[in-house]
Amino acid sequence: MKTASLEYELIRSLTEHFPRCPRQINGLGESDAELLRLPGGSILAVTTDCIAEEISAGLYDPWLAGWMAVVANLSDLAAVGARPLGLLLSETLDRKWNPGQIRQLQQGIADAAEACGTGVLGGDTNFGDRTAITGTAFGICENARPISRKGMAPDDGLYISSPAGIGSAFAASRLEAIGDVRYRPLPALSESIVVRQHASACMDNSDGLLPTLDELMRVNGFGFTLPLSFEDILHPDAMDMSEKLSLPQWMFLAGPHGDYSLVFTIPAPEEENFLTSCTRIGWKPLKIGHVTKRSKLTLTSNGSAALCDSRVLRNLTFDFPNPHDLIKSLLNSESNIFQEIRS
Amino acid sequence: MKTASLEYELIRSLTEHFPRCPRQINGLGESDAELLRLPGGSILAVTTDCIAEEISAGLYDPWLAGWMAVVANLSDLAAVGARPLGLLLSETLDRKWNPGQIRQLQQGIADAAEACGTGVLGGDTNFGDRTAITGTAFGICENARPISRKGMAPDDGLYISSPAGIGSAFAASRLEAIGDVRYRPLPALSESIVVRQHASACMDNSDGLLPTLDELMRVNGFGFTLPLSFEDILHPDAMDMSEKLSLPQWMFLAGPHGDYSLVFTIPAPEEENFLTSCTRIGWKPLKIGHVTKRSKLTLTSNGSAALCDSRVLRNLTFDFPNPHDLIKSLLNSESNIFQEIRS
Repeated sequence: MKTASLEYELIRSLTEHFPRCPRQINGLGESDAELLRLPGGSILAVTTDCIAEEISAGLYDPWLAGWMAVVANLSDLAAVGARPLGLLLSETLDRKWNPGQIRQLQQGIADAAEACGTGVLGGDTNFGDRTAITGTAFGICENARPISRKGMAPDDGLYISSPAGIGSAFAASRLEAIGDVRYRPLPALSESIVVRQHASACMDNSDGLLPTLDELMRVNGFGFTLPLSFEDILHPDAMDMSEKLSLPQWMFLAGPHGDYSLVFTIPAPEEENFLTSCTRIGWKPLKIGHVTKRSKLTLTSNGSAALCDSRVLRNLTFDFPNPHDLIKSLLNSESNIFQEIRS
Repeated sequence: MKTASLEYELIRSLTEHFPRCPRQINGLGESDAELLRLPGGSILAVTTDCIAEEISAGLYDPWLAGWMAVVANLSDLAAVGARPLGLLLSETLDRKWNPGQIRQLQQGIADAAEACGTGVLGGDTNFGDRTAITGTAFGICENARPISRKGMAPDDGLYISSPAGIGSAFAASRLEAIGDVRYRPLPALSESIVVRQHASACMDNSDGLLPTLDELMRVNGFGFTLPLSFEDILHPDAMDMSEKLSLPQWMFLAGPHGDYSLVFTIPAPEEENFLTSCTRIGWKPLKIGHVTKRSKLTLTSNGSAALCDSRVLRNLTFDFPNPHDLIKSLLNSESNIFQEIRS
């Protein structure tokens, strides 16, 4: 029996009675941002994301919470190839926060918007028992089709826009108070313009690489083979934290705290053109594997191929569990998640 | 010395370092929705609003919370004359809610979207200690200028789209467990199409009539005279609750829980055309006064004119205080808020 995606099933059950918008062109879970055909033909891309658990869990200080409320949303625009038009922010401010903390939060928002070349249109401010920042980003695709999670085909190359695992390495470092991982992700907006021109599917890595691959598999009905070993995929800081904490390398690809890089597929006949365009903007994406017809995820661990049940893994990371419990349950489930392939 | 608007000052200080969007055409607090010129020339209207305090305070049951998360946002689109394109929802669900409560919340969202002829594009779902629903609405103004809070001039007629005070009457009824006020506001979307064609300024009454007039005065630098007595402005349910609770009638115009009707001004030369258009759609707006050059609010109480310091009143209702404390402090401040005009 195929394991259901808890997240997808929850969202499906919550939204099944909602009326749909006639102008929406994507189905549920098919793209990182919702896509809407405007009168005139351009595509409006809109997305919303709330930063709250990361603050309560001690993962984000006020400045980083502001930064991430912007980046998480703009990264969804990058994944569909939309150019940002602006942001709305709905802020619930913890009444216990002092003016300095509120200033840092707002500065994080301002710094990220500035760094991404966009601005804040307006929003809504409330006070409550804990800080929660809901960002909404708007973008536009003019004279170009947007890209979605759907569209990859067997033999397409699988790429990531930058080495993986920095999000998990940062989370581990912050929560275990070990090491000092610099984490200030930027959405891959300029890379996204190139990706849009060549890719068959794209998704941002906001929940870890393996959950992202799992979602692409669910949407497309195909699988992936990753012949690279983890050392060749992981960010140096993730390798470092894996050693320091004696945790297996794969755990830094398990999420749920992401890198906000792009994960995308390029059809084989497009790969040469794609790489030429990358060189032109001075960007070196990392090819980590290819799409397979069978809907299975094959990884390379210690030099030998292993099947990964990414659905089991993903369901364990669903809904931001307590990080210590998560690490324990991932370790306990290792034999359920990975299965050696006997040759 | 002129009393500052606490809300405006807070928002100004929170947002002063935010980069602006070059395509935004409205200034801070100048319109109910943010207005953005799209490539091609149409205007995109976007707005976000969070429903949380109303749930914690026991004012909204789950169904009404869902309904209001939609209506509060679409009402902002109505106030700028935009046609809805769709909604995004970022939901934090109280972990203590049972499946029935969650179902009712989602049904309230679905029912309101259906009733307004729009749909839900997507969103974000989290779990937390209390339920908070942030809605974001998108609308478009094609081939027509949007309308904003700014633009009224002395002698313009002052109108409301329907009798005032139903929001306060409902809040009083629910919180005091007296009476049974039916409250299921709908955004004035079809009225808004007429208003857009004729009005000089418009704002939705989401915080009570007097705070809305105060904001229009702040933005435009003019005032209002309302020669009608409160009985002629108030919704019958507000009159009824005023009697039942022995509270002065003006208190039902004080907010902070609103009616989601439109408050707008019509230049005198436009009034005839405006009223003809209203008749055509079977709508009878209520003329309650006119714009004055002096930035003062003159009301009619017990047949005699009184000056109302709406800024003092509005600052008392800022940030959703405990309703019982609010009623007490409004009663205690009556002599600060109203000043009899000796003729």
